[in-house]
Amino acid sequence: MDIQGRTASYRHPQDAPYVHKVGLPPKQNLFSEFKATLKETFFADDPLRSFKDQPGSKKFILGLQTIFPILEWGRNYSLAKFRGDLIAGLTIASLCIPQDIGYAKLANLDPQYGLYSSFVPPLIYACMGSSRDIAIGPVAVVSLLLGTLLQDEIDPVANAEEYRRLAFTATFFAGITQVTLGFFRLGFLIDFLSHAAIVGFMSGAAITIALQQLKGFLGIKKFTKKTDIVSVMHSVFDSAHHGWNWQTIVIGVSFLSFLLAAKHIGKKNKKFFWVPAIGPLISVIVSTFFVFITRADKEGVQIVRHIDQGINPSSVHQIYFKGDYLLKGVRIGIVAGMVALTEAIAIGRTFAAMKDYQLDGNKEMVALGTMNVVGSMTSCYVATGSFSRSAVNYMAGCRTAVSNIIMAIVVFLTLKFLTPLFKYTPNAILAAIIISAVINLVDYDAAYLIWKIDKFDFVACMGAFFGVVFVNVEIGLLIAVSISFAKILLQVTRPRTAILGNLPRSTVYRNILQYPEAAKVPGVLIVRVDSAIYFSNSNYIKERILRWLIDEDDLVNESGQTKIQFLIVEMSPVTDIDTSGIHALEELYRSLQKREIQLILANPGPVVIDKLHASSFAQMIGEDKIFLTVADAVASCCPKSVGEV
Amino acid sequence: MDIQGRTASYRHPQDAPYVHKVGLPPKQNLFSEFKATLKETFFADDPLRSFKDQPGSKKFILGLQTIFPILEWGRNYSLAKFRGDLIAGLTIASLCIPQDIGYAKLANLDPQYGLYSSFVPPLIYACMGSSRDIAIGPVAVVSLLLGTLLQDEIDPVANAEEYRRLAFTATFFAGITQVTLGFFRLGFLIDFLSHAAIVGFMSGAAITIALQQLKGFLGIKKFTKKTDIVSVMHSVFDSAHHGWNWQTIVIGVSFLSFLLAAKHIGKKNKKFFWVPAIGPLISVIVSTFFVFITRADKEGVQIVRHIDQGINPSSVHQIYFKGDYLLKGVRIGIVAGMVALTEAIAIGRTFAAMKDYQLDGNKEMVALGTMNVVGSMTSCYVATGSFSRSAVNYMAGCRTAVSNIIMAIVVFLTLKFLTPLFKYTPNAILAAIIISAVINLVDYDAAYLIWKIDKFDFVACMGAFFGVVFVNVEIGLLIAVSISFAKILLQVTRPRTAILGNLPRSTVYRNILQYPEAAKVPGVLIVRVDSAIYFSNSNYIKERILRWLIDEDDLVNESGQTKIQFLIVEMSPVTDIDTSGIHALEELYRSLQKREIQLILANPGPVVIDKLHASSFAQMIGEDKIFLTVADAVASCCPKSVGEV
Repeated sequence: MDIQGRTASYRHPQDAPYVHKVGLPPKQNLFSEFKATLKETFFADDPLRSFKDQPGSKKFILGLQTIFPILEWGRNYSLAKFRGDLIAGLTIASLCIPQDIGYAKLANLDPQYGLYSSFVPPLIYACMGSSRDIAIGPVAVVSLLLGTLLQDEIDPVANAEEYRRLAFTATFFAGITQVTLGFFRLGFLIDFLSHAAIVGFMSGAAITIALQQLKGFLGIKKFTKKTDIVSVMHSVFDSAHHGWNWQTIVIGVSFLSFLLAAKHIGKKNKKFFWVPAIGPLISVIVSTFFVFITRADKEGVQIVRHIDQGINPSSVHQIYFKGDYLLKGVRIGIVAGMVALTEAIAIGRTFAAMKDYQLDGNKEMVALGTMNVVGSMTSCYVATGSFSRSAVNYMAGCRTAVSNIIMAIVVFLTLKFLTPLFKYTPNAILAAIIISAVINLVDYDAAYLIWKIDKFDFVACMGAFFGVVFVNVEIGLLIAVSISFAKILLQVTRPRTAILGNLPRSTVYRNILQYPEAAKVPGVLIVRVDSAIYFSNSNYIKERILRWLIDEDDLVNESGQTKIQFLIVEMSPVTDIDTSGIHALEELYRSLQKREIQLILANPGPVVIDKLHASSFAQMIGEDKIFLTVADAVASCCPKSVGEV
Repeated sequence: MDIQGRTASYRHPQDAPYVHKVGLPPKQNLFSEFKATLKETFFADDPLRSFKDQPGSKKFILGLQTIFPILEWGRNYSLAKFRGDLIAGLTIASLCIPQDIGYAKLANLDPQYGLYSSFVPPLIYACMGSSRDIAIGPVAVVSLLLGTLLQDEIDPVANAEEYRRLAFTATFFAGITQVTLGFFRLGFLIDFLSHAAIVGFMSGAAITIALQQLKGFLGIKKFTKKTDIVSVMHSVFDSAHHGWNWQTIVIGVSFLSFLLAAKHIGKKNKKFFWVPAIGPLISVIVSTFFVFITRADKEGVQIVRHIDQGINPSSVHQIYFKGDYLLKGVRIGIVAGMVALTEAIAIGRTFAAMKDYQLDGNKEMVALGTMNVVGSMTSCYVATGSFSRSAVNYMAGCRTAVSNIIMAIVVFLTLKFLTPLFKYTPNAILAAIIISAVINLVDYDAAYLIWKIDKFDFVACMGAFFGVVFVNVEIGLLIAVSISFAKILLQVTRPRTAILGNLPRSTVYRNILQYPEAAKVPGVLIVRVDSAIYFSNSNYIKERILRWLIDEDDLVNESGQTKIQFLIVEMSPVTDIDTSGIHALEELYRSLQKREIQLILANPGPVVIDKLHASSFAQMIGEDKIFLTVADAVASCCPKSVGEV
């Protein structure tokens, strides 16, 4: 190396000069490199950590515990925990029963199917899941999505039997999708749905669901099958003169006010979280009793009428394993399964972070998938974690998944003995309950925060929102995914670059746009490339660097400063480079040679320096042109400037 | 800030302490921010730079010159340049005529269509293109691709007329695709086909093309329509006993040896570049004469027989603008257009880098597209830049696109007067010419270099190669694109993270894997995140950091060192963060709080610091926990260590 003077980055400049060379990491062999990459991609969470150094029998037990975490936490279960779980379980049961009946309607299924889906799946999840706070059951958004997708294929009224069979088929494949993703450790795929897109999608779905409730809420008989806001509003106002039922409206409005008031109380004072939680059940009881007494159903108030009594019948033989409907079921199942997964994992992660325990996403997927596969065979439709009930579960003090078991037992008792009591429950109440439940999914604050933080995210959020509200859930989902992907593509094709300058009285070089006080070094242009250099951006990066050079040359010519003689590329953020990237660097080097400018690299990382050597690019520009820090590099090109500053 | 002692990163530690705060970049308004992003994405090359500060009339002339660069360079055209172009033009014409006839066969078209495609398109390109070295015309890979895709739809022998019409339709839409990509400045899309994938695809296509030539080379009459190596070899050996024609083989082998020898000479001594360039024409003349004299065609040697005389007829009315074939034409056109584009842009860039001039990718696409649209109306099929002819053009000393005009004139004269002379040209010669032309596309060296540099790239390369050779060009292309995309997804979901340590006698902190001498600071864990934090990786990054912490804790417990009390996240490479990323940081912060570990950030970039403030995360962890350098951050958590080291 040609640096002899005091260079900049050392603690004790008075010491003898000591120059660190850019380190070449120890050579790995191909297999271990491959293994490391594979591990980081698919087993980033190191799932086998606890199996290390254990005897065979212990491994078997650990394996069982991995699949059924209940075997692990069940051994430490105590009465204190049970008290918490009992209260939480009863609370979410009181919330879930009326919700289930309403959500089943969103999926165009009879009310008992909602209850079935709150019985078997929570039991399976309690054995296999690792979240302590999630409350399992049918949820509004997935019910709506499933209903919309299914009714595009089969008319739910004319062909109720086939419709139901397709619903079970879709549920089965939703479960299979989830298990597959988990088993092959492809859980990271759901990370591709960005937070912003989910916020938009959920808000849009909430509005769509609320709009759908206008049917029950206003007592309209003829209602559009479309879910977009324009069609729904058309339906509502077309029937304004003859289709609205004032008794229904009175019941609906008064109970909705009650539910919203209860919600408000719960929000104001965390102690009263149980008020909104049991509000729905109270509404159902009071309104059912009221209708039963007044026989308002004779005045046109629509009621539930009939819910099948008894627990889940088997539906194994109803699943389509061949024929046309198989493929349709698979398609719908994949979409519904992914959306359900996204919701469940988001909830699981949120509460895990609040209580500080780790959640294995892939294991969760296997649990959720198994629960849906078993569900599809016991007359359940797609179940997942519910936002609203999980929050209530958490606030009611649940300690383990036992609260789900308690809830399932209550649902079981309801199915066994209480369904006849729902006969006179007015549909308007169910509508009011659903409206008050989904209204929280419209997340203004999150949208505003997204707007403040990232405008592109906001576009994704709004795209998904308007897609759902003005077209349908499918299109909204498609928009959300497309914009999310477009963002990734943009990120990898157009990485940022920055011109660096020296911060006064330091050896630190920083972006001159962020630190206006940073001074450029005369005759030297320092460019930092802020991304790995891959085929998708290598040309852009090369051309962008040359453009920085041209701009700088223009500036220099105007002001009559020293001509640029050195181009330092700060490579710290360049974590990787591929063959296209090496080619781009070679082209850059040749272009610079033509202009008599010396190319210098600063601080290439382990992977990059390895590849620079493998491709002989390091030899091409000269080993002594690669430095540990920008300061060293600057010192090498203008030894004078070190003394000056 | 709480640092009072001497901190690490300053040139003159004896000076009064002077701490740089992390800069907040000047606030931009929304519109200018949006404009800057848009410009960087679509107008990264600043195409309007030369229009700035020009009067209206000048702008018009500049605009014309932008569309037709010939108006610009034509004004400085000189006799010296013409001499170079004339020689180069004649050389590539002699090479292109036999190649064209052979390539047309690959596309299942009559030989004259190959010649047509070397007449009109080069003329259009010469007016609109900005590359000085590219030689335009039909190329082997695109001909094969087009032939394969078209014959899946229509039988080229039974329905020759419709087949031809679909070919023109596909050519038209290939052109439209190219113009559209260029006009909407989506040129960066072709960057998504990685260099490695192209090397594999091209090598595979070359082998497939060479295998196809065995038909003409061995004089086999019945030949499979499939292009995979298994079917072709089956065809070849099935006909070994009765289908091979020894006279054909003798002619083929002797001229192939001649051509390969010529190639070898050209490679050995750059002066003799013209030997391989005119080799094909000499072979054609000699072999035609030989067959004419000996009437070997009566012995079963297949000959060209007939080429339509006269220049390109109009084919405007033959393009399908409606009906079933429209959609098929569009689909095939898009695929062929993209592949043609990739090849042309790669060639253009290579030679532009060698002569150090800039090539505007988007402008090139408009030129290539226009040339194909016009071509489709004048009986041409998809033309693009040819690797082999462009190299000859370059070595023959071409100076401008005039060499393409010279070539077009020679092709014109050939079409007008010389086509009858090709009657006795044996097909075996065309096969030999094609084999010797495509053999160079099998790029062992590039594949070996890819293997050395990047194993993942090598997988993409081999995937594309085996896909083409063992299945077909379409599947090969699909594999190439899929693997390229998978790589991008992997890159954005699984970014690297590194543990940093202090290099002895410096204030520099580097990856301890790369610099084994770097020392960890007791009680402090320094993690560098090597990528923007987006929704696709935010969870992974959060969990990865926590995992580093657990690993470190294990180590610390074993060795009885100071417990980790501070976690410094070095953010230099984190160029951007979105709402999901902020959430992940918040969750990380909460997890750390539970463990009584202080989160500290070092050197967030301009965008990141802006968003940390917008989201109030900066306030959450405390402004004084954000430092300019890792050294500052370390100094703040263990003021003692500064003195110790």
